[in-house]
Amino acid sequence: MTVNLNVILGASIGIAILSFLFAAWLFKWVSSRPSSNQRIAEVGKLIRSGAYTFMKKEYIALSKFAGIAAVLIFIFLPEPIWKTDVVLDNVKITIAYIVGTAFSAFAGKIGIDIATIANVKAAEAAKQGIKPSFLAGFRGGSVMGMAVVGSSLLGVALVWLLTGDGTIALGFSFGASSLALFAKAGGGIFTKTADISADLVGKVELGIPEDDPRNPAVIADNVGDNVGDVAGMGADLFDSNVASMVAALVMASTLPNRDLNIALVFCYAAIGLLSSIIGVACARMGKKGTPTRALNTSTYLTTAIYAVLSAAVTALFDFSAIGNNGEWRIWGASFLGLLVGVIVGISTDYFTDDTKKPVHNLAKASESGPAFTILSGFSYGMLSALPSMVGIAISALVSYKLCEPIGEGYAFFGISMAAVGMLSIVGMIISNDAYGPIVDNARGLAEMGNLGEEVLEITDQLDSAGNTVKAITKGFAIGAAGLTVISLLGAFMSEVNEAAKKLGEELLSGFDITNPTVFFGLLIGAAIPAVFSAMLILGVDRNAQRMVAEIHRQFKEIIGLREGKEGVTPEYDKCIAIATIGALRELIPAGLAAIVATLLVGFIGGVQAIGGFITGNIVSGLLLSLLMSNSGGLWDNGKKYVEAGNHGGKGSPAHKAAVVGDTVGDPFKDTAGPSINTQITVVSLVSSLMATLFLQFSIFG
Amino acid sequence: MTVNLNVILGASIGIAILSFLFAAWLFKWVSSRPSSNQRIAEVGKLIRSGAYTFMKKEYIALSKFAGIAAVLIFIFLPEPIWKTDVVLDNVKITIAYIVGTAFSAFAGKIGIDIATIANVKAAEAAKQGIKPSFLAGFRGGSVMGMAVVGSSLLGVALVWLLTGDGTIALGFSFGASSLALFAKAGGGIFTKTADISADLVGKVELGIPEDDPRNPAVIADNVGDNVGDVAGMGADLFDSNVASMVAALVMASTLPNRDLNIALVFCYAAIGLLSSIIGVACARMGKKGTPTRALNTSTYLTTAIYAVLSAAVTALFDFSAIGNNGEWRIWGASFLGLLVGVIVGISTDYFTDDTKKPVHNLAKASESGPAFTILSGFSYGMLSALPSMVGIAISALVSYKLCEPIGEGYAFFGISMAAVGMLSIVGMIISNDAYGPIVDNARGLAEMGNLGEEVLEITDQLDSAGNTVKAITKGFAIGAAGLTVISLLGAFMSEVNEAAKKLGEELLSGFDITNPTVFFGLLIGAAIPAVFSAMLILGVDRNAQRMVAEIHRQFKEIIGLREGKEGVTPEYDKCIAIATIGALRELIPAGLAAIVATLLVGFIGGVQAIGGFITGNIVSGLLLSLLMSNSGGLWDNGKKYVEAGNHGGKGSPAHKAAVVGDTVGDPFKDTAGPSINTQITVVSLVSSLMATLFLQFSIFG
Repeated sequence: MTVNLNVILGASIGIAILSFLFAAWLFKWVSSRPSSNQRIAEVGKLIRSGAYTFMKKEYIALSKFAGIAAVLIFIFLPEPIWKTDVVLDNVKITIAYIVGTAFSAFAGKIGIDIATIANVKAAEAAKQGIKPSFLAGFRGGSVMGMAVVGSSLLGVALVWLLTGDGTIALGFSFGASSLALFAKAGGGIFTKTADISADLVGKVELGIPEDDPRNPAVIADNVGDNVGDVAGMGADLFDSNVASMVAALVMASTLPNRDLNIALVFCYAAIGLLSSIIGVACARMGKKGTPTRALNTSTYLTTAIYAVLSAAVTALFDFSAIGNNGEWRIWGASFLGLLVGVIVGISTDYFTDDTKKPVHNLAKASESGPAFTILSGFSYGMLSALPSMVGIAISALVSYKLCEPIGEGYAFFGISMAAVGMLSIVGMIISNDAYGPIVDNARGLAEMGNLGEEVLEITDQLDSAGNTVKAITKGFAIGAAGLTVISLLGAFMSEVNEAAKKLGEELLSGFDITNPTVFFGLLIGAAIPAVFSAMLILGVDRNAQRMVAEIHRQFKEIIGLREGKEGVTPEYDKCIAIATIGALRELIPAGLAAIVATLLVGFIGGVQAIGGFITGNIVSGLLLSLLMSNSGGLWDNGKKYVEAGNHGGKGSPAHKAAVVGDTVGDPFKDTAGPSINTQITVVSLVSSLMATLFLQFSIFG
Repeated sequence: MTVNLNVILGASIGIAILSFLFAAWLFKWVSSRPSSNQRIAEVGKLIRSGAYTFMKKEYIALSKFAGIAAVLIFIFLPEPIWKTDVVLDNVKITIAYIVGTAFSAFAGKIGIDIATIANVKAAEAAKQGIKPSFLAGFRGGSVMGMAVVGSSLLGVALVWLLTGDGTIALGFSFGASSLALFAKAGGGIFTKTADISADLVGKVELGIPEDDPRNPAVIADNVGDNVGDVAGMGADLFDSNVASMVAALVMASTLPNRDLNIALVFCYAAIGLLSSIIGVACARMGKKGTPTRALNTSTYLTTAIYAVLSAAVTALFDFSAIGNNGEWRIWGASFLGLLVGVIVGISTDYFTDDTKKPVHNLAKASESGPAFTILSGFSYGMLSALPSMVGIAISALVSYKLCEPIGEGYAFFGISMAAVGMLSIVGMIISNDAYGPIVDNARGLAEMGNLGEEVLEITDQLDSAGNTVKAITKGFAIGAAGLTVISLLGAFMSEVNEAAKKLGEELLSGFDITNPTVFFGLLIGAAIPAVFSAMLILGVDRNAQRMVAEIHRQFKEIIGLREGKEGVTPEYDKCIAIATIGALRELIPAGLAAIVATLLVGFIGGVQAIGGFITGNIVSGLLLSLLMSNSGGLWDNGKKYVEAGNHGGKGSPAHKAAVVGDTVGDPFKDTAGPSINTQITVVSLVSSLMATLFLQFSIFG
């Protein structure tokens, strides 16, 4: 079949709309599950309104930031308005940026909408057994998955259909990323402030159970699951997904057979979404199955469907003009990316699975005190970086070599297609990932609604499955971000060379490490993720200290609260307010620091320094995010392993030590670690967008 | 004056001998201090014999490793013996390697010899007041400083006088580094095993004071200060110092005016040593001075003397043949390096000084529990990496640009001279650094010898000064290692190109980040310091668990020990044995992992992959070592700040939390953090030595 790009763009938009319809159906299905418990409904409402309050305030703050950014973009990009002949380009890129932020905000909003319904439904469904409860949780998560991936495909396809311009697509992607950066940072600070404070006073000091309604921070904690894990994570993967497509498109458009390359990008992205739709539709717990197995089976199924469908499309359409079996080489790169994603996920799983050595050693070390818990968790976290980094290194190298014979410039395009491939099944990944906080919330609701031990056991089982698949999906997210930013480095070079051509300057052939300007950028770029994470963690630290003080105050001043006297309720809203205000105060500086550092390095050292800067940022960002995500997951599961009765069980010294580890791990794995992904992407996108300016206006460049 | 290289080499050897004579005089001076306390003499003897036992066992283990390495070097380097025409080169490089290990071992040995005498002398001198005690401690440390720097200058000068061959000098440097790598790792594991275990059971569980003689681990702890901090640190700076000179020599020999360049390297290194001799000779506490001020004043004095003398020599001798004011540009690079070293040290100091914000915030956070101590210390550690990395980046960039106009190849030589400059006053730095563990030991001896509160106050003051200057000297050490390995990257390229010329292959022009083989190496190289540190920390973790169990056993089984009954002593030797056996078991795998990874990457991806590998290794190595050294120092001082009566003082919840932080920080700052320096250097040296083989025998290179 002859390839017609417009048809393929149309089909992509069609599949995106299909995913919306499917999301709407899932939404309706989840909403129509029965619910009757008064207490759960009340608490559910509190969580929902807390989440909306925070999101509203956050979006108001971010819209101010986005407004300022939009004005700056309009004035300076792609070229300063006083220098350009085509002011329309500045208008287009500004609109693309704004639409990008709006799409990203929409993805977060949908997530909150469904998650704050599905949590109640999953809790109530647990009364009927594990299977219906699982399905309510999973399908709730899938609404998010379908909506996020649908909107990212729709957004990119529309931008491309209307403009066909890589730089404008970069503007759209930057809009998505910049919002995601702040949403993740803000949500991450909110959720961990509440989580840590609730645990510290509740579990550690007073010895009351998790999610005990007497705890003033308990609602804030559940709100946090939604605004941090659901909305934040959705924004994060939305942004990675868009960035991977845009990076591929930017490079595709500089190559011969432009339309064919671009068609392949959309084909594979759309097929990935279609495969995820099928995978989600088929997912359920088998007769003897466990929730973990159900989640993993659907992931593997989706992967297989993607492999078959994408191969079929590659064979069916006539891509032969690319030459030298190019379409199959590109397909190979995309499939390799996906495969490595799965492998990275599995290897990550090893370090956090409670049947494996790291968790067991950590639990044993906890017997000697909290310092040993920290040391062993931190060490395993560092070890865990190796397999993932080797995996990313190999997939970049192999996809490059695979596509190199197609022709000049195709090699880097190969890396970007590996990233697209790794993210192809992102719809499925998000569904799995959003399932986690929903069932976590359901557990809290079941506890607060007094649904009894049996129901709690079910929700515990569902929650634990959520934690297990989380390791895999996080590995995926980090791996995908890694490959995406490597291909964004290629996109940056494309942008620089396009600008250089226009200006009649010499073309870049690469970034030589032995050029001291590159090395200068490299060292500073490597320090940025550390500074960024430190600012976020210190934000959580400060904020949690404030909230702990507030909880102490309430237990001291509200008479009867500690004893659980009938009718005495804590002032939940005060804790929500502390988390909200603190998160809003801390979220802007960290993100801004990363962007400002990029601008400084670019205007001082020029494009060569930026090449190094992006690279240093990728390398140390990957290392730190793997370290933090995995050590955090390990500490979490180590604590659960002790709580399950090992090394003295609950209340033992080992348990106390393990709780310290878990608390340290909280902002590692849910605030800083995953935010680094977005930070790297934002830095790369800013660099690409500013390429022309850096080329012209740097001091030493 | 005309430059005659042999005269300058002779003068360098002369100054090296002068430093030995001065060291001998200092040794005699320290030994002749009065000592009379029976109990201190006894304990001092125990420490001394424990240290010798460990060193002996360690050196036996390492000599086996070095023997195997020597055989491999003989067979394969610089070219496989079955392929080369000049087997003599293989003999030479093997001998250079062996001599390098011997010199490094000698430096460690001297350190132990003097430190285990000076500790007793400083303790006894404290009875006469702070000034004589300070002088005994400082001059003890200076023996080490003079011997280490003297032997490194002597070694390199002799190798150069006899062979004049960069590759053979690399062999000498590799000998020094490989021994340092294992000595640091082994000593670091020993010292922290003992320190953590002693604190955990003694201070935390039983509430007995530090250095209480009832504690079975107390002697092991004091032994550890010597074998870890003194011998290990000496080997580390010996190796950095040699590596910086050798990197400069390798590059100098490929440039025009070879002899003049080489003369400058030796001139500046020798003048640095001479300045350190003068600085050490002048050091004493003024009338109203504090020990900290005395140490810092001598450092600044040495810096000033270096600046004047090196400028004088540059003016006096006729280096004009280099052209374009080359000698002054090179002098500028060396002085810039030294200046940046001081600045990096001061900026590091900010993050660990107990009068500054980080320590105060950490102490405050400790009120909320140990998790907050960890989170805030870790975050400040990450923040602390930025100024140092910016400093290293700027000094590399500026020294490159400064020397670029001299001619092709001089730019990278400029970086290596910045490293030589930064390390020029290393004799002074080591003297300051070795002072720390000596007075730490003296404090322990004063406690065990019952010298009374007044003496303890003096030794406490001396000890605290040791901790403060440690921050500066560590910043120096890391900065110097950073610049040295950047210049080793240049040396690697020189080596590759020399080999390529011989083989008639294309010359390297650099390492392009957008080359996927380079990127492949980059990602894996970045993971190695994390894996290496994790292995060391897990080693300490495992080992300390064993020792804690042994201490528990002794307190349980030895009747009267806990109560301190007259005549009942713990079995100190059992704890020493556990630390020794554990350290020997854990030290080889980590170091070997780094070397094997280098060989794997080199034989798989060739020289391009190695270029990336070294770079990734430098970048993540610097980040992690700064993070670990500084957070460790911060936790240590945070604990001391609380102990000084803040936030509840000793025994308060904040104090308990701060102790957890300090325990986590112990292997960070004294085992893993500083070992990473050596790991990076070893990787760079292995790469340079293997350049020819990687060029010929790689799979994808």
